[in-house]
Amino acid sequence: MPVYKAPLRDMKFLLNDVFDYPAHYQRLASGENATPDIVDAILTECGRFCEEVLSPLYQTGDEEGCTLDNGQVTTPGGYRDAYEQYVSGGWQGLSAPEAFGGQGLPASMGLLKQEMMGTANWSFSMYPGLSLGAMNTIFLHGDEQQKQTFLIPLTEGRWAGTMCLTEPQCGTDLGQVKTRAEPQSDGSYRLTGTKIFISSGEHDLTENIVHIVLARLPEAPKGTRGISLFIVPKFLPDAEGGVGERNAVSCGALEKKMGIKASATCVMNFDGATGFLIGPENEGLDCMFTFMNTARIGTAIQGVGPAELSYQWALAYARERRSMRALSGKKDPEEVADTIIHHADVRRMLLTQKAIAEGGRAMLYYAARLADHMVEGLTEGDDRKAEKYDDKLGFLTPILKGFLTEMGCEAANLGVQVFGGHGYIREHGMEQIVRDTRIATLYEGTTGIQALDLLGRKVLLMTRGGAVRDFTLKIANFARKQLTDKRLRPYALELIKLTGQWNLLTVRIMLAARKERDLVSAAANDFLMYSGYVTMAYMWLRQATAAVDRLDNGGEESEAFYRAKLATTEFYFERLLPRAQSHATSMLSPTRTLMQLEPDHMAFTG
Amino acid sequence: MPVYKAPLRDMKFLLNDVFDYPAHYQRLASGENATPDIVDAILTECGRFCEEVLSPLYQTGDEEGCTLDNGQVTTPGGYRDAYEQYVSGGWQGLSAPEAFGGQGLPASMGLLKQEMMGTANWSFSMYPGLSLGAMNTIFLHGDEQQKQTFLIPLTEGRWAGTMCLTEPQCGTDLGQVKTRAEPQSDGSYRLTGTKIFISSGEHDLTENIVHIVLARLPEAPKGTRGISLFIVPKFLPDAEGGVGERNAVSCGALEKKMGIKASATCVMNFDGATGFLIGPENEGLDCMFTFMNTARIGTAIQGVGPAELSYQWALAYARERRSMRALSGKKDPEEVADTIIHHADVRRMLLTQKAIAEGGRAMLYYAARLADHMVEGLTEGDDRKAEKYDDKLGFLTPILKGFLTEMGCEAANLGVQVFGGHGYIREHGMEQIVRDTRIATLYEGTTGIQALDLLGRKVLLMTRGGAVRDFTLKIANFARKQLTDKRLRPYALELIKLTGQWNLLTVRIMLAARKERDLVSAAANDFLMYSGYVTMAYMWLRQATAAVDRLDNGGEESEAFYRAKLATTEFYFERLLPRAQSHATSMLSPTRTLMQLEPDHMAFTG
Repeated sequence: MPVYKAPLRDMKFLLNDVFDYPAHYQRLASGENATPDIVDAILTECGRFCEEVLSPLYQTGDEEGCTLDNGQVTTPGGYRDAYEQYVSGGWQGLSAPEAFGGQGLPASMGLLKQEMMGTANWSFSMYPGLSLGAMNTIFLHGDEQQKQTFLIPLTEGRWAGTMCLTEPQCGTDLGQVKTRAEPQSDGSYRLTGTKIFISSGEHDLTENIVHIVLARLPEAPKGTRGISLFIVPKFLPDAEGGVGERNAVSCGALEKKMGIKASATCVMNFDGATGFLIGPENEGLDCMFTFMNTARIGTAIQGVGPAELSYQWALAYARERRSMRALSGKKDPEEVADTIIHHADVRRMLLTQKAIAEGGRAMLYYAARLADHMVEGLTEGDDRKAEKYDDKLGFLTPILKGFLTEMGCEAANLGVQVFGGHGYIREHGMEQIVRDTRIATLYEGTTGIQALDLLGRKVLLMTRGGAVRDFTLKIANFARKQLTDKRLRPYALELIKLTGQWNLLTVRIMLAARKERDLVSAAANDFLMYSGYVTMAYMWLRQATAAVDRLDNGGEESEAFYRAKLATTEFYFERLLPRAQSHATSMLSPTRTLMQLEPDHMAFTG
Repeated sequence: MPVYKAPLRDMKFLLNDVFDYPAHYQRLASGENATPDIVDAILTECGRFCEEVLSPLYQTGDEEGCTLDNGQVTTPGGYRDAYEQYVSGGWQGLSAPEAFGGQGLPASMGLLKQEMMGTANWSFSMYPGLSLGAMNTIFLHGDEQQKQTFLIPLTEGRWAGTMCLTEPQCGTDLGQVKTRAEPQSDGSYRLTGTKIFISSGEHDLTENIVHIVLARLPEAPKGTRGISLFIVPKFLPDAEGGVGERNAVSCGALEKKMGIKASATCVMNFDGATGFLIGPENEGLDCMFTFMNTARIGTAIQGVGPAELSYQWALAYARERRSMRALSGKKDPEEVADTIIHHADVRRMLLTQKAIAEGGRAMLYYAARLADHMVEGLTEGDDRKAEKYDDKLGFLTPILKGFLTEMGCEAANLGVQVFGGHGYIREHGMEQIVRDTRIATLYEGTTGIQALDLLGRKVLLMTRGGAVRDFTLKIANFARKQLTDKRLRPYALELIKLTGQWNLLTVRIMLAARKERDLVSAAANDFLMYSGYVTMAYMWLRQATAAVDRLDNGGEESEAFYRAKLATTEFYFERLLPRAQSHATSMLSPTRTLMQLEPDHMAFTG
């Protein structure tokens, strides 16, 4: 079985050479302790944990899955021990405020950790990942007592958390939520209803589980403006903050899924469970979505992770498997056949994976800097600063989440393809990556929702194209500076051309959508994918620029690494970026091409 | 659980209105009995069998899978009974010669049957499907006694067959085959070796299994020219042609796979098993591949089938599931939300599935006419005729198999996407379609192999571009005739433009490949996908032309059906066909963009 190797070389290149994180951290209050040495030590240690502890549980967790017996969920063998190591390493509080037991490091450090964990073992990483969602919600909207009671054990990892949004009749359309919350005389509430698709809803990793639940107060307004947020712990805390009485919330069933089988996806029944209001009445959705942009960077990791993992394994296989001869002549004449890495079509698949993994990682790290500033604003209570960076992030996150998770699926499927028929066999692990990553375009807002959020909300409604103008200006300014270097000039020119086209497409959609509202939904997917390809092109130019700079200024010891960056940039611009043009063409197609058929005429039988 | 409905309306449209099968069958010797009434009755009856018998076993077969116990493989519950009904219906011999117990109908009728069976339940359809491979091989290369002994029970379906090619060290590169065949004094051979990935290698559906096996004679030349073909039955036939002594061939293991779990994928051990040479010594590969083009149309069905099945289920869901409001205004104001079919992005996904299913079906039926002529040539011993049509098929089949199976994966994934998070849950069946169809781009020659076969062999080596010239001439001639109808004119113009581009791209690759041999492999995938998009565009113009003709000439009773064809044609040309241009751009990219990186520099750790 192949194993995960933390791609530290690439991570450090992005942190140090491309995005200058050392300087970035110096400017952050939370960056005081994030010195290069500390960052290095943390990455190394986290990488070791992921390689040695999480990676070996990747396939066994899939085979075993989770089991439900008498309301108790058992995680696969090795998960409890791995989680204990995770807690004792203090990993859960890495980016959490020191006031609540965290290490107070920048948010981006937490994302680096999540990337490595999620790549080594996505299912495992979901348990602490969901806790982060609960922690963020309580940190931002909880009162002091709620923070003391719930946030500290969550930060330590002793307790875990969940986000309970979805119900059988609604996922995206949360205005349809039916779960009820009845106020009690003691100030608490009794919650009744059913939630589905609750990741980590029940498990055996922690002594308590803190559910963050969307529910309706009696006589709350209909729709999205009548939903409030509640903390519903599995065990009610006792007077000393320990684990007290069992609450009336329980796991009714585990979903049988395509993948991420080691992650417990629960139907949760609330049978008059005791809950505590968090945040203002009827503003639950706003509270839930405060950290959404940061959380969605987390989900975007699930595009990069599978690309990286599948690439590592496919590359190893392509270096070993022998089949046929290279068209340009025998490479290993003494062997029965050449290794398949010498076939150009295999290279195409491998380089596509590599370009997605490394280009996607760059997109994550680019956004993570903004997340650091946004979180700093929140932590300091500087609302303007938080909003400013949240707006920048708000434009990028649907691109990251929507585009990268789609690309992650492509990369994982290519990994199977490199293995040929062997890729279809479970023992090789390649098909598991496909099954696991397939969830990424569905949860936390489907690709369709990301696309609508990007085009309909962030670009058209909120900024009338301003978000695209601002971002493309940044890209074009950067690209213009590279025109003088002949190694970078073709990419810079192409990118400048694309920034113009991106604005033009935005304006044309804006004008057309005034007449046809449906056009926004009709164009959204193509617009999202187009935006993703251009953003990734920008990231490849940034990487190529850094590589050129290092090659010219003393990077000899890593010359091959930097040259590989230039080669991959060329591959990306020549062989993946052209896809943007097919999206540009089809996004301007009239709405009628989608809507003219009556629903009744979509199929005919007999 | 949703069920399969045979798309008879669409099938008859293609057969009668688009490709004029009634006239085609009149011209075939084997078409004498294929009168419109008979064809209609067969399609209806086959559809009923697929809907009522095979479809209900689709999900249960996946859940149960096959089991191996003490060398015996047990298929999932219901499979034996379904197979008995299949045999007693005489379905296996539908297109087989009457001389060996078949019904002697045209080959295309067999493909229509396979399409319906494969769509309703791909795993089940593999058992009789593999038998067809064995039947074809014995029919073409067996001596009279072999035909009497093996072909008759295979045609009746009493016995089943397999094709044993792959070994652990080789799949594509069959020159590496190691299985040995030692001649015996009685004229038989003893085979020793291990074959893997043998579909239907062992099961409980039939009283005997006839393996067609690639193996090496002693002192055979190395490589592909030293491989011979053998018949190795599970039970040696006794003097009366019944089941005699157990042969030394056995199933050593069942593979655990991503999907098609109800299909037994076996490791087969040959431990001095008795075999009979079929065809000339050392020409086994040629014999094996005689029917390959026809067989590959069969595999191309696995692109169309999942698109159809996934579309049927996704459409039903989209008509029921309610979420949010349509951007153009409420559609069901009295309900809590609109059904999701009113969202343009959902329409985009559904129409993509529909365009792939119906466009792909047209490609199959177009090729199936050629297969009828090819098989007629073979049956009549008219080698020139057989070769002429095999050449035409030889150009189309890599496009069909390569392109359609890739598109089938896309369509199946869109079906999951329409279901949102529910698509990831096994009970809805959508994720199973993704898992099942994922094999299609891997077996019977990966997409990469199809691409190389198309560009390297069929287009460049064998015809120096002539195959593209001939086919595009046919397309352009057809398109030119439609220029006068304003409903068809834009598509005809676009298609004429594309035929020119297709030739130009071919010439440019041909010239460039003289200098760089690797370029053929570097361009192959893009060339394949480009060819697929253009071929499918041709099929949509053919369908639109037939629809216009029927609308103008008395097709009122099906007006909505024909209008839907025109709407789907417009969708295809506006929203899918633009992708061809991104392939056109990247296929001309220099080889160095794939090959310049040293294999050792593809990844860096530490």
